[in-house]
Amino acid sequence: MDEVSGFKLILDRYNGVTIDSLPFIEDKTSFENNLLFLIQHLQNDKRKLLWISFSLENAHLIEIASKQEFTFHNCGDNYVMMVKKLTPNPIIPTAPTHTLGVGVVVINENKEILLIKERFSNIGYKLPGGHIDLGEKIETAVCREVLEETGIIVEFESVITLSSFHPHQFGKGNIYILCKANPLSDTINIQDTDEILEAKWMNVDEFLADVNTFEYVKEIIQSSFSTHGLKHKELEFFKNLDIECELFFPN
Amino acid sequence: MDEVSGFKLILDRYNGVTIDSLPFIEDKTSFENNLLFLIQHLQNDKRKLLWISFSLENAHLIEIASKQEFTFHNCGDNYVMMVKKLTPNPIIPTAPTHTLGVGVVVINENKEILLIKERFSNIGYKLPGGHIDLGEKIETAVCREVLEETGIIVEFESVITLSSFHPHQFGKGNIYILCKANPLSDTINIQDTDEILEAKWMNVDEFLADVNTFEYVKEIIQSSFSTHGLKHKELEFFKNLDIECELFFPN
Repeated sequence: MDEVSGFKLILDRYNGVTIDSLPFIEDKTSFENNLLFLIQHLQNDKRKLLWISFSLENAHLIEIASKQEFTFHNCGDNYVMMVKKLTPNPIIPTAPTHTLGVGVVVINENKEILLIKERFSNIGYKLPGGHIDLGEKIETAVCREVLEETGIIVEFESVITLSSFHPHQFGKGNIYILCKANPLSDTINIQDTDEILEAKWMNVDEFLADVNTFEYVKEIIQSSFSTHGLKHKELEFFKNLDIECELFFPN
Repeated sequence: MDEVSGFKLILDRYNGVTIDSLPFIEDKTSFENNLLFLIQHLQNDKRKLLWISFSLENAHLIEIASKQEFTFHNCGDNYVMMVKKLTPNPIIPTAPTHTLGVGVVVINENKEILLIKERFSNIGYKLPGGHIDLGEKIETAVCREVLEETGIIVEFESVITLSSFHPHQFGKGNIYILCKANPLSDTINIQDTDEILEAKWMNVDEFLADVNTFEYVKEIIQSSFSTHGLKHKELEFFKNLDIECELFFPN
């Protein structure tokens, strides 16, 4: 790690430089002067990108970065990461573009399918499901959403279909991963009563025959009968890495 | 659309309010006073969230929002969207959490598989592929990446496996969608020579037998033989909507 004008720097494999954990800096003028010096220094070194993550407490410094032609790249609740091109056409890694959602087909031994009705929606009965949180596994989201929305405990079985939508919220994309899961309990007990108005088991043939059931949902349910889908697979290689992974392969 | 203290407001179905296209505002003090008035007004109305998108030219106003307990939510090159809770525990829609990538298995009539070697990587031959851009279809990304990296024209066939990784770049997640595609041309002609060092056709049995080939890549290639995968499906319902969608179902 290098240090220039008081900034701790990390070099990446694309010849980009990130300012590591910028401390709270009150004085905007000294930040501006140091930043200008750093940019000149990095351009002399033929570096391609400069990245700075601004915390909320450093929000007053964002104005200075924007004057130096930084643009926004990605953010979390408490920070926004900005990037500046130091050469005309550097490669900039893609920022997060998608939210992920799960929909879950749960059918019990009586050939009944688990359905919910949302409080703020004019669509009738639909498959349980919802957003996958940052860092959450798909399997975990499947079990969590079904439990929250219906009280039913399920075990993940497989991924059966995949849909991609654009634009979704905030002009970004959405990947909707439809899964099959097996019920391990039977009694409906909605936990998220703020969002869910009703949950029930319904005869699946009756639901498929209903003219109000979307063709899309019918296709998903039919798929859950006709395919084994993509199942979890564990591979030794990934067990030794520092990242979590979840692999789905045909079985 | 309502207007309060000069802000044009849009109400959403979660009882949240978005300031619609904030114009350039030079005067920070008047922005702060108007914002304080607006927050008070919305709290009296029992609204739950206030959203503001700050363009780069309004970057000097972000400091004021951060003082009023706005947090960052999502961003694009030229804007960052911030949100403030107006009640203790409102539902906040999920921000984009994932980048998407494609990997492509392309095998020709001579049982040769299309492989590439990256310039900045110590991994040997690998499947072509790369990031899916915001708004880009999975099918389009498959064809584009193979063309850029090898010069080979392909047609998308199916999604064969799915992998989820966390954390990936910038602490966010990544969904890696492995697809099968059919070659429509034969001659290697790398277009993205900045990133790709080499591309070639290699006997697939030889590649599978190579001890340097990752178990993960072997599994993906085996899957491309053993499954039809998830294929494109068109549904009438989505044709009538304003959003683009791409559906993948078992065939």
